[in-house]
Amino acid sequence: MQRIIKLDNAKIVIEYTSSAVGHEEFFGPLGDLFDFHDESDRFGARTWELAESELGRITLNLALKKAGLRPSDVGIIFAGDLQNQCVATSQGLASFGIPYMGLYGACSTCGEGLLSSSVFLNSSPAVERAAVVTSSHNCAAERQFRTPIEYGGQRTPTAQWTATAAGAFILRRMETNEKEISAIPDENFSKTNLSAIKNAKKPSETHTVYIDEVMVGKIVDGGVTDAGNMGAAMAPAAADSIETYLKESARTPEDFDAIITGDLGREGSEILCELLLSVGINIKKKHLDCGMLMYDFKRQDVHSGASGCGCSASVMASHFIPEMKKGKYKNVMFLATGALMSPSSIQQGGSIAGIAPVVVLRSDFSGR
Amino acid sequence: MQRIIKLDNAKIVIEYTSSAVGHEEFFGPLGDLFDFHDESDRFGARTWELAESELGRITLNLALKKAGLRPSDVGIIFAGDLQNQCVATSQGLASFGIPYMGLYGACSTCGEGLLSSSVFLNSSPAVERAAVVTSSHNCAAERQFRTPIEYGGQRTPTAQWTATAAGAFILRRMETNEKEISAIPDENFSKTNLSAIKNAKKPSETHTVYIDEVMVGKIVDGGVTDAGNMGAAMAPAAADSIETYLKESARTPEDFDAIITGDLGREGSEILCELLLSVGINIKKKHLDCGMLMYDFKRQDVHSGASGCGCSASVMASHFIPEMKKGKYKNVMFLATGALMSPSSIQQGGSIAGIAPVVVLRSDFSGR
Repeated sequence: MQRIIKLDNAKIVIEYTSSAVGHEEFFGPLGDLFDFHDESDRFGARTWELAESELGRITLNLALKKAGLRPSDVGIIFAGDLQNQCVATSQGLASFGIPYMGLYGACSTCGEGLLSSSVFLNSSPAVERAAVVTSSHNCAAERQFRTPIEYGGQRTPTAQWTATAAGAFILRRMETNEKEISAIPDENFSKTNLSAIKNAKKPSETHTVYIDEVMVGKIVDGGVTDAGNMGAAMAPAAADSIETYLKESARTPEDFDAIITGDLGREGSEILCELLLSVGINIKKKHLDCGMLMYDFKRQDVHSGASGCGCSASVMASHFIPEMKKGKYKNVMFLATGALMSPSSIQQGGSIAGIAPVVVLRSDFSGR
Repeated sequence: MQRIIKLDNAKIVIEYTSSAVGHEEFFGPLGDLFDFHDESDRFGARTWELAESELGRITLNLALKKAGLRPSDVGIIFAGDLQNQCVATSQGLASFGIPYMGLYGACSTCGEGLLSSSVFLNSSPAVERAAVVTSSHNCAAERQFRTPIEYGGQRTPTAQWTATAAGAFILRRMETNEKEISAIPDENFSKTNLSAIKNAKKPSETHTVYIDEVMVGKIVDGGVTDAGNMGAAMAPAAADSIETYLKESARTPEDFDAIITGDLGREGSEILCELLLSVGINIKKKHLDCGMLMYDFKRQDVHSGASGCGCSASVMASHFIPEMKKGKYKNVMFLATGALMSPSSIQQGGSIAGIAPVVVLRSDFSGR
């Protein structure tokens, strides 16, 4: 059975992205790239759970501002988070009034959202623009999944640090015969009024980023039961998706400038590369992991790296998509990675399955 | 902005459905229609949470059997449930190995799944068949959202009874020039081998059920904070979706044989009809609610009716879709209804928002 879905009816463009983070992320190596940060991690809210709602709300707000769009210009929003019943998202995004599709793919939700939105945009001209927002908050996640941070519980070396972060993406359906609008020259960019900025790019953005193909991930259960080792739980799913995609598309890792995983961290990244080597696929030179890029391992006490719905979303939104717009990366395979478990499934001895949807991105020169 | 998504690239057919329920549902008025039941509500599992996983697994299994399909014949499964992190679904469906899209729309997940799967099927011929499965379990839901049933807590008159139920749907993309295969005559149906049953219909099924249009719902927050009154929390979202759909499509309630809501119950159904009357829309003669049909109010102590992800899924799968296949209902608007909240959002004083995606179904005579 065919697994890859080619998006042939239209060109699906990632037009705008935005990100917001907390204290630890702002002081990491990517700190300057995020659009917004709050050193208190509170985002003006009285609980950690509501802080995450605010984080998502702020991030979508910034994306709309960059795009010069009003909420009513966006046809559908695909969103989710790690809180029970994805309530951070539904509370944070309600006031925008954008038609809403709630997703749950654990830390893979950003990839699932990009996949869903691009398939919806490809399906019908009725949807011209869609948004994707995903978030996570360290303090809300720790007290829900493990112990409240005030408890000071010890973490194992394989444990990851749930990022306090959110990323937003605004996608557009471009008809196949539609020409990409070139950038407004530098000197006029800041003077241009809001309606002219719509669809326009910054001068430094010489490339347009497209989603060409997607592939839905399978639930892969490697039998890991340790909630302190999400990397090991997710790596088999990422390996399965990469192997399946490369086989069906008859492509090799060399066809990509980067194969980016969501949040495997140090432990999971090593396992992924080993699993793929055992079937003759070497991705070591192409592999990058958002969870490995978020923090400085020497300076920050984050053990195996970053995780959470907001990790891959904010790193893609602030670093990789902008770099693609500058033409640095042209062909990218993005696999957000999710660990499918709940506090009660862990307590009842259940194993943690993984999932890794594939989103294939391309950047093309579209004028200076 | 246009809200309705017309599925024009192909004909989207709901080919097969199945359902499984627990004790209380089996003894309700629809009891004989469900494909499977377990009077112990345990489905062979050692915890209520795992029982729900089994319930989902059994339901999908039965749908595949009816369809004469193997799991590998299904391109994507859209699924979700009410448990934290939708873990009932990810544990229950992992072993099928079907590419998985996790959804969270609370009790609206069945509608969200039908909407998503039909848009995906419409988007690309790469996906020929998709499945939708949603479930809920009374004992798992009660101890997660309210109190364990052993506690014997009193319930308010507006409270609903989370159904122990699951429903599964198998959808197919039919190319627009493809002819529907007629039913195999009665006398030969049971003798026909498995491969011939594929795509064939039972003799009594004279009609084919299509999904023609869908509309994503908005998050509507009416300010309800009472976790014992989900009907009131969800009714404003259903009213918003019905009003928006009728306005944009220039249709009236009279154009439908039934307008079916998911699980508003007695309280929510009354509120819905009143809200719509206040804007000049009278749906009283057309409105049916799955949550009102599941139990016998006189005989069963279920207060305001049924709720849960499995409620609308099992009632649609066992009652409405089969009736449509017999030609009883021809034009149906289905709105699964979801209440977006979590135990902690309620404890922190948050209000409960609602959502109601629209799925427009049509049955057409396709030979005897």
